[in-house]
Amino acid sequence: EWKGAPKIATSDGWSFKPRGRLQFDAGFIDAFDSERVADGFANEVRRARLGVEGTMPGGFGYKFEVDFAGADAQITDGILTYKSGDVKLTAGQHNNFQGLDELTSSLSNSFMERAAFTDAFGFERRVGLSAQYEAGIVLVQGGLFTDNFEDLPNGNWGADGRVVVMPKFGNAQLHFGASVHYTDIAQDSDVNSVRYRQRPMVHFTGTRFVDTGALLALAETGYGLEAAAIAGPFHVASEASWQRTDRIADFADPTFFGAYVEAGYFLTRGDRRGYKPGVFDRVKPENPVGEGGIGAIQVNVRYDYLDLVDAGISGGTQNGYEISLIWTPTAWTRLMLDYGHIEYDGAVYPNPAGSRSYAVDAFGMRAQVDF
Amino acid sequence: EWKGAPKIATSDGWSFKPRGRLQFDAGFIDAFDSERVADGFANEVRRARLGVEGTMPGGFGYKFEVDFAGADAQITDGILTYKSGDVKLTAGQHNNFQGLDELTSSLSNSFMERAAFTDAFGFERRVGLSAQYEAGIVLVQGGLFTDNFEDLPNGNWGADGRVVVMPKFGNAQLHFGASVHYTDIAQDSDVNSVRYRQRPMVHFTGTRFVDTGALLALAETGYGLEAAAIAGPFHVASEASWQRTDRIADFADPTFFGAYVEAGYFLTRGDRRGYKPGVFDRVKPENPVGEGGIGAIQVNVRYDYLDLVDAGISGGTQNGYEISLIWTPTAWTRLMLDYGHIEYDGAVYPNPAGSRSYAVDAFGMRAQVDF
Amino acid sequence: EWKGAPKIATSDGWSFKPRGRLQFDAGFIDAFDSERVADGFANEVRRARLGVEGTMPGGFGYKFEVDFAGADAQITDGILTYKSGDVKLTAGQHNNFQGLDELTSSLSNSFMERAAFTDAFGFERRVGLSAQYEAGIVLVQGGLFTDNFEDLPNGNWGADGRVVVMPKFGNAQLHFGASVHYTDIAQDSDVNSVRYRQRPMVHFTGTRFVDTGALLALAETGYGLEAAAIAGPFHVASEASWQRTDRIADFADPTFFGAYVEAGYFLTRGDRRGYKPGVFDRVKPENPVGEGGIGAIQVNVRYDYLDLVDAGISGGTQNGYEISLIWTPTAWTRLMLDYGHIEYDGAVYPNPAGSRSYAVDAFGMRAQVDF
Repeated sequence: EWKGAPKIATSDGWSFKPRGRLQFDAGFIDAFDSERVADGFANEVRRARLGVEGTMPGGFGYKFEVDFAGADAQITDGILTYKSGDVKLTAGQHNNFQGLDELTSSLSNSFMERAAFTDAFGFERRVGLSAQYEAGIVLVQGGLFTDNFEDLPNGNWGADGRVVVMPKFGNAQLHFGASVHYTDIAQDSDVNSVRYRQRPMVHFTGTRFVDTGALLALAETGYGLEAAAIAGPFHVASEASWQRTDRIADFADPTFFGAYVEAGYFLTRGDRRGYKPGVFDRVKPENPVGEGGIGAIQVNVRYDYLDLVDAGISGGTQNGYEISLIWTPTAWTRLMLDYGHIEYDGAVYPNPAGSRSYAVDAFGMRAQVDF
Repeated sequence: EWKGAPKIATSDGWSFKPRGRLQFDAGFIDAFDSERVADGFANEVRRARLGVEGTMPGGFGYKFEVDFAGADAQITDGILTYKSGDVKLTAGQHNNFQGLDELTSSLSNSFMERAAFTDAFGFERRVGLSAQYEAGIVLVQGGLFTDNFEDLPNGNWGADGRVVVMPKFGNAQLHFGASVHYTDIAQDSDVNSVRYRQRPMVHFTGTRFVDTGALLALAETGYGLEAAAIAGPFHVASEASWQRTDRIADFADPTFFGAYVEAGYFLTRGDRRGYKPGVFDRVKPENPVGEGGIGAIQVNVRYDYLDLVDAGISGGTQNGYEISLIWTPTAWTRLMLDYGHIEYDGAVYPNPAGSRSYAVDAFGMRAQVDF
Repeated sequence: EWKGAPKIATSDGWSFKPRGRLQFDAGFIDAFDSERVADGFANEVRRARLGVEGTMPGGFGYKFEVDFAGADAQITDGILTYKSGDVKLTAGQHNNFQGLDELTSSLSNSFMERAAFTDAFGFERRVGLSAQYEAGIVLVQGGLFTDNFEDLPNGNWGADGRVVVMPKFGNAQLHFGASVHYTDIAQDSDVNSVRYRQRPMVHFTGTRFVDTGALLALAETGYGLEAAAIAGPFHVASEASWQRTDRIADFADPTFFGAYVEAGYFLTRGDRRGYKPGVFDRVKPENPVGEGGIGAIQVNVRYDYLDLVDAGISGGTQNGYEISLIWTPTAWTRLMLDYGHIEYDGAVYPNPAGSRSYAVDAFGMRAQVDF
């Protein structure tokens, strides 16, 4: 069986499949001339991952993937699982149920980068222990987590939970979710600070126009709401996320906020976004390249809001307007064009006129293969 | 053929198998309050390895594995082998025949961490060339080694040899071994020092209560003795290791010493420790989870001694008392609970009462999968 | 199908193959005593790569390989390809068509290290987009490149092109090529300098006797010429390469030069160097070890010239005389012995007599396996 790469499996529970993905990004940022702002053309290897996944008799399984795109090799998912009936236990480094856009694979997102709040609020994989219950249209996920493996050991710990209801009406797939997150930040650690910031829609720049700076903190509490629908060639999705920070001593505790709403449409007949419990899945073109077709072509628009101003913290706000054009020649290859117009208020870097309210335009393209 | 992952092989000498292992550790250290001592809860990704092994027509073979659990990706085994009859030649990075506990895979040890002297004396894989002769109950190993690939080139070199006799009496497997080790430390290198130190039974702490500090050295000479037996559900194992350091100039040359004795018993009927020439092998439960059984359950106890005091060097001594409970649901999955009570004399860090003689307790647990 | 490792393939366009290589080097440098010159024995893990390659229905393909021999894991090839008829498009990190010796795999070169100019002129893989046209005896390659993924984003970009004609006369394979290269160096980057330097024939030393030092530069322009022939057990190959540097401001613009000519002969009957479009391919012994033969034995000689002196820059020149003996037991294993006598003029490090004109001898050996 081929799923990008061969999946070798037996009837008594053994399976093994290599995994990998390559994403190459290039594009432009159109901001203003400043020594502190990266402007113009840039490109990068966005993700370059190799890994494996498999199952074993007795209900056990594993997934282990490493990303080589940065300066160091980084473990992304590194998990041991046990499945019994509707319940699945997971130990190791994995996502802590942050929300629809974060949990949907970077192979299947509708824009090159996820909504602004997902990076801004520090969503990342963490080492922990979780349980998932899935039955019919209900998915319940919860776990105890520490921190990303690179930051261990540091004494941080947290608890996360998420509930999704995913009814179908005819061919329409609906998705409603809510999640809650708590992280306790160890005070005897060298780093007991948090920082919320975000790039302008593309990853190949190091400039963050919104940025709270480092805040010494005792704990973080997050809430998320999700809604989405897939109906034939259409899809809509929206999330809202609140992140409250308990600062040390008598400092006021800010609550930051992010939200997006997006809609998409396939221009090619018969194509639709994939869905699997709790997340969007890959697009499998009805008429792929190589079988006489041209693949799937999809247009998406998104409004992406982020507010990092509260309780005396002035990290800035953004109103982002984005459009993407995605060509999916086959289920395992993808080309994307993204354009974003991001309006900032109270940005970190003043423009030459001395104003902190201005717009930045970003244009990106991506070539992607996975297996 | 499945050995955790599929092993693809032909009758004319080709074979190929992916390899991998994931180990997640968590636990507590109960020491005393001090800025210099890490106390309390901690966790980590202990090992996260991916690799391959294979054979080729003509008697050639290879094994190549990388560990991603640290900040950098590290080659563990990276070898090219040639086998002809009873003789096997190995070139590349591999273990230099240090002793039973070190050479037994971390997948199959009876405690979360090996005996204290194995880390204290700096056992590690090194790049070199070795030969192994195995016939009947005799195993002879010897080689010339330089250093771990990360430290190359540095001019260090050494020679190592080990002899094992492994008779069977009925169903009982016996094991007797002796090894000798010599390392010449290059003097024009930036780093011509050695340092002997050890953590308290678990790896997720950075605190070493015994530590000689850095010693400028010309050479190291090591000796090891090994004895073990597996008889049905019982096993015993014991090793002793001497490490002599030739210090520069007229400094006195210390000989440090470590030893352990352990015993274990399986509570589940029919289970026993695995053995392959020269090392313990994995446990293959008689009634694994998934085939109507509960897997194998094993209890082990160990006394673990380390003496880093000699010739004017006061690195401290430890008397460790350890117990482990290992549940092996299937041959490729494992859960461990470890408890250790370690009594130190002349420890590096004084406790609040100013004493360097005190006890530290450590509790650890591990979830493991490999293929 | 076995190509070192199993290649899994279907008739409708799917294929998948793991890739890997291990190279262990050791040897001696015989220079003179100096604190700044590494002399004597050294060894290293030269390359330790793991990766995958595959094809997908629709004409798509990928190759992704990581090298673990250095302190960090490094992506070597990381590409997404599309093939239609005689044209192949490649996106990602790959070689920018530098020339015959650079493009020939390190598994198949006739010496342990490539000709001196290939490292001296900074040949490396870069992220970019390229097209290749191959029909009959003609190969045309061209692309736009940025920089190695580790240096991104930095604003550098370049264009590269290469033409090869590869006629056959009877059993003789001829090869003629020419290439041109341009790199624009971003001036707002932190590092807008280039540096040309080279080790003495082996890689396990850090000493470069020829070295221009860092030159602040606006652009580089390179030209290469290639000619080679394989006729039965004989082969000859030669290249010349010019590298012109446009320095900042009014500084004079030097053009550096390198060239080599090599010849080789197989002592074993029936063996010859492999060739595939544009590069040498691996040797497949006519009578490999394991099938009653002794593999292939090859002797090569090379003259290797490098001139880093021009326009006021005194980086030194080298005249290298090299001989290699290669034993290829099977198509996937190789042992090499290399000896080089390198005469320097105007070298960077004066010898104890104060002269910068002297000879250095280098001896190296390599054990290699790949799949």
